[in-house]
Amino acid sequence: MSYYNLSGKNKYYTLYSLIRGDILRGKLKEGERLPSKRGLAADLGVSVVTVEQAYEQLLAEGYIRSEERSGYFVERGVQSFPPPAHGGEPEAEEVEGERFKLDFVDGRTPEELFPFSVWARLFRKVLSDGGEHLLRRVPADGEPRLKKAISDYLYRSRGIEAEPKRIVIGAGAEFLYGIIVHLLGVNPKIAVENPCYTKISSTYLLSGAKIIPLNVKGGGICPDELQNSGADAVHLSPAHQFPTGEVTPVSNRLKIINFAREGRYIIEDDYDSEFRLSGKPLQSLYSLCPDRVIYINTFSKTLAPSMRLGYMILPPALYEKFMQLFSQGANVVPLFEQLALAEMLDGGFFERHLSRLKNSYREVRQILTAAFANERGCAISDNGSGLHFVAKIEGATDDEIKETARGRGVRVKCLGDYLIAPAEGLEGCAVINYSGLTPERLKKVIY
Amino acid sequence: MSYYNLSGKNKYYTLYSLIRGDILRGKLKEGERLPSKRGLAADLGVSVVTVEQAYEQLLAEGYIRSEERSGYFVERGVQSFPPPAHGGEPEAEEVEGERFKLDFVDGRTPEELFPFSVWARLFRKVLSDGGEHLLRRVPADGEPRLKKAISDYLYRSRGIEAEPKRIVIGAGAEFLYGIIVHLLGVNPKIAVENPCYTKISSTYLLSGAKIIPLNVKGGGICPDELQNSGADAVHLSPAHQFPTGEVTPVSNRLKIINFAREGRYIIEDDYDSEFRLSGKPLQSLYSLCPDRVIYINTFSKTLAPSMRLGYMILPPALYEKFMQLFSQGANVVPLFEQLALAEMLDGGFFERHLSRLKNSYREVRQILTAAFANERGCAISDNGSGLHFVAKIEGATDDEIKETARGRGVRVKCLGDYLIAPAEGLEGCAVINYSGLTPERLKKVIY
Repeated sequence: MSYYNLSGKNKYYTLYSLIRGDILRGKLKEGERLPSKRGLAADLGVSVVTVEQAYEQLLAEGYIRSEERSGYFVERGVQSFPPPAHGGEPEAEEVEGERFKLDFVDGRTPEELFPFSVWARLFRKVLSDGGEHLLRRVPADGEPRLKKAISDYLYRSRGIEAEPKRIVIGAGAEFLYGIIVHLLGVNPKIAVENPCYTKISSTYLLSGAKIIPLNVKGGGICPDELQNSGADAVHLSPAHQFPTGEVTPVSNRLKIINFAREGRYIIEDDYDSEFRLSGKPLQSLYSLCPDRVIYINTFSKTLAPSMRLGYMILPPALYEKFMQLFSQGANVVPLFEQLALAEMLDGGFFERHLSRLKNSYREVRQILTAAFANERGCAISDNGSGLHFVAKIEGATDDEIKETARGRGVRVKCLGDYLIAPAEGLEGCAVINYSGLTPERLKKVIY
Repeated sequence: MSYYNLSGKNKYYTLYSLIRGDILRGKLKEGERLPSKRGLAADLGVSVVTVEQAYEQLLAEGYIRSEERSGYFVERGVQSFPPPAHGGEPEAEEVEGERFKLDFVDGRTPEELFPFSVWARLFRKVLSDGGEHLLRRVPADGEPRLKKAISDYLYRSRGIEAEPKRIVIGAGAEFLYGIIVHLLGVNPKIAVENPCYTKISSTYLLSGAKIIPLNVKGGGICPDELQNSGADAVHLSPAHQFPTGEVTPVSNRLKIINFAREGRYIIEDDYDSEFRLSGKPLQSLYSLCPDRVIYINTFSKTLAPSMRLGYMILPPALYEKFMQLFSQGANVVPLFEQLALAEMLDGGFFERHLSRLKNSYREVRQILTAAFANERGCAISDNGSGLHFVAKIEGATDDEIKETARGRGVRVKCLGDYLIAPAEGLEGCAVINYSGLTPERLKKVIY
């Protein structure tokens, strides 16, 4: 562990993250003894307190155990332990202060493509149409006009038939995950794809759920493993799993639906289905079984993460539970925003914006896939869906990939960075998320 | 119980609420036997299923217990049981469809007083100044410009010195209550004023906290009771308790601060301190002990509940914990809104708006206190603070007050409606919340 690089402000946290990462990736094996605090502190040139804090946190989260007079050891069966609540993204801090020419991690809409003038106009319209209605507390499940507009949009664009009533508006996907935990009961067990967008598992944990990681292989998670997992619900993105890019085949979809028949639920996170760049999006699980599937999506990818706008469709029983628990509270999304978005959807502005976005991303993808295809030893798996693909670099380790990329001014993460429990066979796979790029920006860097 | 009036849609819920209310108010005593399901159903002219559902819910929440073959009984020590998560406001449903000439319950800013044109102008400015920054995920604790603007405003208006860094922006007070529970640890015990704004206790419960109700008497809660309560934290509004209107005297403030010295925290909910209509606001508890007090406030009363804008100042240790738990997530308040509010505060627009609001409310209060002073047997307690006062009607019960008011087209609640545990001596006190009124509207009804 003496090769750890602890630059940056929060040394204890970085050290904690690095050790945890090594445990999850299997570099530190079950039962293996950790260096003494003093020894490691001397090796790394940090204070003993820093090492102590890092060990304490690993201890508290159950990654390691302490044995009196003999030291610290990697705990057995760490995959059954929940990942930490803070997202498990050790690199996040290193980004600050460093300028990248190309960023394949951060996914915000390019500024050139955001419809500022449309949004300003619609917002002004909302305020001037306004009146008393604008100042009321919004019902817990959201502004009815927006619920109706989303229902209409889902039908037009995705063939989903959802009663407006059962749509619930929330401040982004993570916010809605927290609500779902409350709807599933006390400390529900939720099966989560591994690897995954780590905020999924961390938000569930923070809200009191227990996490059961299921490894993603070709075609997504294994329905039999799910069936035997003891989970009360499963969270998945069958249309385009992040970060693996796997698409769940129809045969598996039906088996997954079967899991939910016995009082259990499926949380279908359709986070980037709008961006199927070739062909039609696959039918949603929700459409197959609206009574057992919670469908969830946001406008973070299509508009901007700063807008905090998401929604879910709840099965009837869960909608009733939602209203029992929350109907006395107000919806947390500002009403002005909800009405402006309703105008945007109803007026066709959103779909015009989306088609402009898709044209841009399609071009970005062509440039990138061509560039990667030319690299020696590089195989890309791209199924024409979503805003990222995976590039496997033969013989390279994750660390080598990231180091090389960094040397070229490129920020990238690997599949291994999204693990929430150990999994094999993922080494050497870069996740190329191009949602923050435009063809113009890309050409400036590449050519 | 045969006098219950179960009109309206949701009969089981109404019945449940009425029985629960009678238990909390002591009309149904500990150990008392409830009527049989069939008997009560026949009495009330509803189906047995309706009674069954109501009993089931009371049973699930621990208000009653069932004894085999002998029926249902009021549970002992119900005050130690948490109030229900749905807010304990049985009247809420009756409002729908009924038009009131005067509403002393709902508290939204009168439309005439909302600065629509200023808000529209600032919002447009934000969008046109904009650029890439506008689309980023907002840091978990909020947009730095708004944090700075709030810090400056608090110093100008309230003499509170708060480092901008330690201010956390959230989607309204209830949202922040939920976060506080996470910061206090696993299932923390929070002492809450009784009676109180029932969403306080219901939100804490929903977030996993345990509630310890402390009765409010003259001068607020009793510091000794607090000291002996076993609570990890206490939630209170020392400047102007809702609904009693009590102000915590300085002697009690110091004792309450002492409670927090031993690793415990005070949550100071300063929800309407901007509206001290005569004299200066009292010094905040936060200013006395910034290391142990969480200060929390919103713009729901000063701007609009539909805007979902609140903030809290965290003690250093809790701020660190907040960043540990949440720093990987995004703030849930839309960035556009945060920047527009920062412009409003920095440009002095907010304080101009506030002074206009206060002038209007001052006039409303004069009209109302004069009108109530003329009613026979009516004593009002008004300490010049906030947007409500309490009117005690001699010899009247809560039900009589509400029924009489309703007959005159007036919607009102009583202190007893805000109980979260049994308390004595509160019968016959109407809570006159005038935050939704203007002098013009009031004159139309009164004269």
